[in-house]
Amino acid sequence: MAERTVFFLSDQTGVTAETLGHSLLTQFSGQEFRHVTLPFIDSVDKAREAAARIDGVSASDAARPIIFSTLVQDQFRDIIREASGLHLDIFDAFLGPLEHELDAKPTQEPGRAHGMSNIGAYMNRIEATNFALANDDGGITRNYEVADVVLLGVSRSGKTPTCLYLALQYGVYAANYPLTDEEFEAGKLPDLLLKQRRKLFGLTIRPERLRQIRRERRSVGRYSSVQQVRYELREAEKLFKRYNIPHVDTTEFSIEEIASRILDSTGVERRVRT
Amino acid sequence: MAERTVFFLSDQTGVTAETLGHSLLTQFSGQEFRHVTLPFIDSVDKAREAAARIDGVSASDAARPIIFSTLVQDQFRDIIREASGLHLDIFDAFLGPLEHELDAKPTQEPGRAHGMSNIGAYMNRIEATNFALANDDGGITRNYEVADVVLLGVSRSGKTPTCLYLALQYGVYAANYPLTDEEFEAGKLPDLLLKQRRKLFGLTIRPERLRQIRRERRSVGRYSSVQQVRYELREAEKLFKRYNIPHVDTTEFSIEEIASRILDSTGVERRVRT
Repeated sequence: MAERTVFFLSDQTGVTAETLGHSLLTQFSGQEFRHVTLPFIDSVDKAREAAARIDGVSASDAARPIIFSTLVQDQFRDIIREASGLHLDIFDAFLGPLEHELDAKPTQEPGRAHGMSNIGAYMNRIEATNFALANDDGGITRNYEVADVVLLGVSRSGKTPTCLYLALQYGVYAANYPLTDEEFEAGKLPDLLLKQRRKLFGLTIRPERLRQIRRERRSVGRYSSVQQVRYELREAEKLFKRYNIPHVDTTEFSIEEIASRILDSTGVERRVRT
Repeated sequence: MAERTVFFLSDQTGVTAETLGHSLLTQFSGQEFRHVTLPFIDSVDKAREAAARIDGVSASDAARPIIFSTLVQDQFRDIIREASGLHLDIFDAFLGPLEHELDAKPTQEPGRAHGMSNIGAYMNRIEATNFALANDDGGITRNYEVADVVLLGVSRSGKTPTCLYLALQYGVYAANYPLTDEEFEAGKLPDLLLKQRRKLFGLTIRPERLRQIRRERRSVGRYSSVQQVRYELREAEKLFKRYNIPHVDTTEFSIEEIASRILDSTGVERRVRT
C-alpha cells in the first residue's frame, strides 16, 4: 500500500493539528503515514511556501496528501486551500457553529491555545513542573501539604513521568513517594504521608512488565529478580488496601491514560490553558 | 455575561477533545467558560450518565452547554447526541471524508491516540523523559552523543521544562547544559559540547523577565541582581554568536512554542505517537 503524506499546518505550534490528526488516523490502522509538521505559518510567504510543498508531494506521491490545518486567519487559509490534497480544517468545520452559538466574532488572532495568552495559567504549569521535580522520588522538599496529589508506588511503576505530565499538561501539583523495604518492613506508611491521606494515589504494575523495565536499567541482581519484584508489588498492594488508597494498574496504560484516571478518580481540577 | 459550560467527552483520556476545544475557544476572548472533562466513556451506562449531566447543566444554566466530543463508537455517540447542547464532534466532521479518501473503514476501536497502540513509540517517550532527567542541568551522565538536541542557557531561561516537554510530547532526546561564570570567564564552551556542535540550541530571555523569575526563587543576592542577570545574558549571547548557535528568546513564548521552534529550526524529527 502506498504511504500517504500527512501535513499538520499551523500558525502556531502545530500541537492542535497534530493531536487532532493522530486521533483520526489511529482509526485507520492498516495504513502507513508520513508525518510533516509545518508550524508558524504566519505570513503570506510562509503560506505560499507550505502550499508549494504540499503541491510538490501531491505531484510525486502515488496518492494526494492529507492536510490537517489550524490556520486562524482567512488570508493564509485561502492560500493553503488552493493546494492539492484532502483538507481537514478545524476552524472551517467548527468556527461557524461556535460563532453562531456564542453570538460573537472570533478574534482571528493567531491561535494562542498553546501560548501564553493566560500568563497565570502558564506560570502555574511551570511552577507545577518545578514542584514535580523537587518532590520527585520522595525528594528533599517533601512539600506534600501544597501537593494536589501524591503518587505512591514501587521503583519504576511510572510515578515520575506521570507527575511531570500532570504538571506540564494540567498545572497539577503532583509529588511522588517511592515504596521501599522501609515501608514494607514497617507495614505502614510514614506519618508525613498519612497526614495527606486523601491526596494519596497508588500505581501498580504487573510483575513481568516491571521486571522487564527494571532489567533494562540493571540487568542483574535483586532489583530485577522475580522474587523481589513480586514481593514489592504484593506489599505495595497490601498498603493500598490497608489505607484504602485508590490505585491503578499502569501495565497497559500510557501516561495520558494514567493521568486522566488519577484526575477522574481524585476529582483534582485541571488547571487548563485557556 | 453568562458563563458557558463546556464539556470535553472522550472514550479515552479526553486530551484530544480538550486540545481541540481550547484552540477554538481561545478565539472568543471575551467569554467565560467553565470546563468539564468526562473521560473514559466506554459503556452505555457511562454515556447515559454523561448525557444526563449535560442535560442537567442545560436545564440550570442560562445558555446551553457546548460539547466537544471524540467518541469513536456509534452507540455511545448516539446516546450523547440526544443531550441538549451544541455538539462539535471531530469524528462526525472528519471521519467520513477520511474514510472516503483512504477507501478504508475506521476500526471504531476506542481511540488509542494517547494510548499505547504503538508500544515502541510510547517507550521512546518514557526513555526520552528519563534521558532528560538524567541530563538535566549539565547532570551527571552527559550522554550528549545520544542526544537529539542540547539546550544551552543561563539559570532559569526555560531549559528544563522545554526538555521535559520535548521528551513527553515528541520522544525527542533533549539534554541541557547551564551557562555559568565558568563558561563566561573562559569565553568558550567546553569540549564535550563542541563535539556535538550541530546539536546545540540556545535559550535567551529578557533581563527584566529573568530577574522576576529568579527573585521568586531567591529574593536577595547576586543571583537576581540587575548586574548579574544582564552580565550573564550578554555573555551567553556572545557565546551563541561566537559558535553560530541558533537561539530563541523565550520571554514571550510558552514551552510548546519554544519546543516547536527548536524542532523547526534544527530539523529534529518528532517521534510521534501514531
